[in-house]
Amino acid sequence: MSDAPETLDPADWDAHRAVAHRMVDDAVDYIRDVRSRPVWQDMPPEVRARLREGVPENGQPIHEVYRQIAADVLPYPMGNIHPRFWMWYMGASNFTGALGDFLAAILGSNLGGGDHAAAEIDNQVVGWMKEMVGYPATASGTLVSGGSMANLIGLTVARNTMSGIDLREMGIPALTAPMRLYGSDQIHSCHRIAVEAMGLGNRALRRVPSDAACRMDLSALRTAIAEDRETGLHPACVIATAGTVNTGAIDDLEAIADLCASEGLWMHVDGCIGALLAIAPKGSALVRGIARADSIALDPHKWLHAPFEVGCALVRDAAAHLETFSVTPEYLEAAPRGIASGAWLHDFGLQTSRGFRALKVWMALKEHGLPKFGRLVDQDLAHARYLSDRIEATPELTLCFPTVINIVCFRYDPGGLSETALKRLNTEIMVQMQEAGIAAVSDTTVQGRHCLRAAINNHRTIPSDLDLLAQEAVRLGHAFVPEAAAD
Amino acid sequence: MSDAPETLDPADWDAHRAVAHRMVDDAVDYIRDVRSRPVWQDMPPEVRARLREGVPENGQPIHEVYRQIAADVLPYPMGNIHPRFWMWYMGASNFTGALGDFLAAILGSNLGGGDHAAAEIDNQVVGWMKEMVGYPATASGTLVSGGSMANLIGLTVARNTMSGIDLREMGIPALTAPMRLYGSDQIHSCHRIAVEAMGLGNRALRRVPSDAACRMDLSALRTAIAEDRETGLHPACVIATAGTVNTGAIDDLEAIADLCASEGLWMHVDGCIGALLAIAPKGSALVRGIARADSIALDPHKWLHAPFEVGCALVRDAAAHLETFSVTPEYLEAAPRGIASGAWLHDFGLQTSRGFRALKVWMALKEHGLPKFGRLVDQDLAHARYLSDRIEATPELTLCFPTVINIVCFRYDPGGLSETALKRLNTEIMVQMQEAGIAAVSDTTVQGRHCLRAAINNHRTIPSDLDLLAQEAVRLGHAFVPEAAAD
Ligand SMILES: Cc1ncc(COP(=O)(O)O)c(C=O)c1O
Ligand SMILES: Cc1ncc(COP(=O)(O)O)c(C=O)c1O
Repeated sequence: MSDAPETLDPADWDAHRAVAHRMVDDAVDYIRDVRSRPVWQDMPPEVRARLREGVPENGQPIHEVYRQIAADVLPYPMGNIHPRFWMWYMGASNFTGALGDFLAAILGSNLGGGDHAAAEIDNQVVGWMKEMVGYPATASGTLVSGGSMANLIGLTVARNTMSGIDLREMGIPALTAPMRLYGSDQIHSCHRIAVEAMGLGNRALRRVPSDAACRMDLSALRTAIAEDRETGLHPACVIATAGTVNTGAIDDLEAIADLCASEGLWMHVDGCIGALLAIAPKGSALVRGIARADSIALDPHKWLHAPFEVGCALVRDAAAHLETFSVTPEYLEAAPRGIASGAWLHDFGLQTSRGFRALKVWMALKEHGLPKFGRLVDQDLAHARYLSDRIEATPELTLCFPTVINIVCFRYDPGGLSETALKRLNTEIMVQMQEAGIAAVSDTTVQGRHCLRAAINNHRTIPSDLDLLAQEAVRLGHAFVPEAAAD
Repeated sequence: MSDAPETLDPADWDAHRAVAHRMVDDAVDYIRDVRSRPVWQDMPPEVRARLREGVPENGQPIHEVYRQIAADVLPYPMGNIHPRFWMWYMGASNFTGALGDFLAAILGSNLGGGDHAAAEIDNQVVGWMKEMVGYPATASGTLVSGGSMANLIGLTVARNTMSGIDLREMGIPALTAPMRLYGSDQIHSCHRIAVEAMGLGNRALRRVPSDAACRMDLSALRTAIAEDRETGLHPACVIATAGTVNTGAIDDLEAIADLCASEGLWMHVDGCIGALLAIAPKGSALVRGIARADSIALDPHKWLHAPFEVGCALVRDAAAHLETFSVTPEYLEAAPRGIASGAWLHDFGLQTSRGFRALKVWMALKEHGLPKFGRLVDQDLAHARYLSDRIEATPELTLCFPTVINIVCFRYDPGGLSETALKRLNTEIMVQMQEAGIAAVSDTTVQGRHCLRAAINNHRTIPSDLDLLAQEAVRLGHAFVPEAAAD
């Protein structure tokens, strides 16, 4: 057989080197100049058509592949790297993080385990996350695809540990009493997906009413637990949310920790939004008590602005974590020395192969230092207060909920319109701002009222961006009122 | 409040631009010259120590961060981009894919959903995967973190669909009969993790004995199903493996499809290793029948050599897929137009936020075209046959299992040694080859015999690399025999 087989490597690297340099220059410009572009714009039909073609039968030079990306992809982003993107809840990415993803792929290493530098860094970054939330060094953790997976990992450890049986072997059919978990009615949808995936069923997750501040009502929680015990169910875990997706409300972590301690329940904190308040000089008081949790989900691709994807699950009892997931088949036995002599990093979650997502987080933390990330968190909080103040000072705008962290719920309400008309009106404001590329906010319903929602988790936002948001909401609202009120 | 807040963007982009260009040049050299470096080398203690420091309190210029990566990280990879890395089963990454990860992070878009170019490409790549395995366009799919997650997605759809109840709402406690899944005793460990995570319990996964060819014994499967029906259990799903991790054996997909059809069972194919044989001119016959499966897990970060991470779950019945995972809380309601008007891509799995992992696959397929990837698969098969022939022609080496695809199980066996001594000897050969940086193979136990295992899934391997492997195994074995035989 021939000694010159085919390979994905180019025979001559010059074309790839040149394209890569062009990408770097374009990428710097792309991020540096993001403010001058629309937040978002609709794709023309011919672009869409090209992105729906079948699998390529013929190859093409790398510079042509890139030409298509430059023409068809880069102009049509979701928009979350833009200073005026405040939809849903996500980070704004960062250039250093993108370099991290590039280098991770060049290195190519698999973080399923083994003894190599990337594995050390994966561990190191998990250690840094523990430090950030005040967890002891003896706790364990793992970097995962995002907050949803981080929650699923924490809840799976909770389920197995609290079951009192060998749940791994015997499964849920062997439980003597159906398990119950508790979260507020503000809990993120990923928890529903988690309890369903775990086989407990959506009804195993009791939604405890929240109070006027959108925090879990603890007397309702106590009642629910007592009721369930009485009817023979098995209360196992309270999911406290540190930063709800709707309004940023933070459940009373200290009180929930006390309650879990006295009731013998597992305390899981969904800190995907708020856990990293712990690193902020001013914000940290908001999540006092978080380190008392048995497990925490947090999300570096949100408040650390790491490019997607990176979430993190932390578990106080490392043995419980390992007992939930570890498995060593014969083809994965550790070797005495060499590549396979390291720990199995896949023993802490649901993946086997794992990417080097740690590197982007590591690089940004090395470059900026932790204190700067803390200041950026406080800055987002200040921006949210600033916007809230502006809204309150604007007669046609209503703050729909007192701003707690960096999520601002508001609506255009000139008075005299029905809830239906207001929803139509505000939806139109939201959509028109996006279509014009001015700003991106999302909408939600809080305590029965439809509202616009700005999640100001963006290291590129400056106050004048928020001024523009308020102004445009008024301008568009005003223009659309007659139509919205029409029927 | 000041209009010059802090940001992660540099005030002056020059330093970042310069470092990024340096990284590109280094990266090209790093991959181009990989053959001249050791496959793997041990980290000196001072490097390890630096990678165990606490969270950085102070920032440092980006070029210093990169200096540490160049010194402490790049020299100490796992090794899988090297032409003589054949451990476990993974891809060898590729430069274009690394550019894809870079651009994905620059674009920054969240693939949870929405109407933007990345979402189109995510869909497009899933469509290409369907084409590759021969699935109809009406099937659905999703890109996930890897093969383990792809299997978990497929099995979760199977569990819910086959339950006959509203399993999402009521959970496993509402099942009238415990569910059973069937896989061969060669099944990958991620399936154990999956059935445990799903709450079915490890005992719900019956390991059906495999035959002399390491394929699931179908008469044993039939007996197991009949037994389980008789004892009141609920046979629900057969997991066929297309390419087992130990030996590359491929279960009889056509026969299993027939059996599932007649027994009314869900057929899931774990094609993490072998599904992409379907694109190979010569190899495709090995997986005939794969498209009859109800769900398929495959793994572009293996045989397409995409950088970690990217796996793919495909489900024939798109409605069943969506019914298993979709959820639309008030803060994720689709809008009539604008950014939120696209489909929710997170409705097909366990993540909410999702990265743009599609881009690296898209770019490499655009650059090379599908047929080249098919030829590369066939080339790996040819390489495995080549190595097997060499082993059979070498008296001191024994082929421990007839090579089926690209996995070669062999050992050094000079004759006259106990199994214990042989295991010690071959482990030492494996470790010494790694320590010397010559080649990386793993070990396993097949049909009771410990052996070395070369998984030749590597677009950089050339036949002389395999010659070297065989030579070195003999040389090291010979040198170590006296010691291994000592006690
Ligand atoms: C409170 C909360 N939990 C969990 C998640 C899910 O995180 P991810 O999107 O990273 O999966 C989110 C996402 O916004 C969230 O806001
Ligand atoms: C047969 C098989 N299934 C599943 C997996 C898991 O895939 P991943 O490592 O991408 O999670 C592997 C990994 O090697 C495998 O060989």
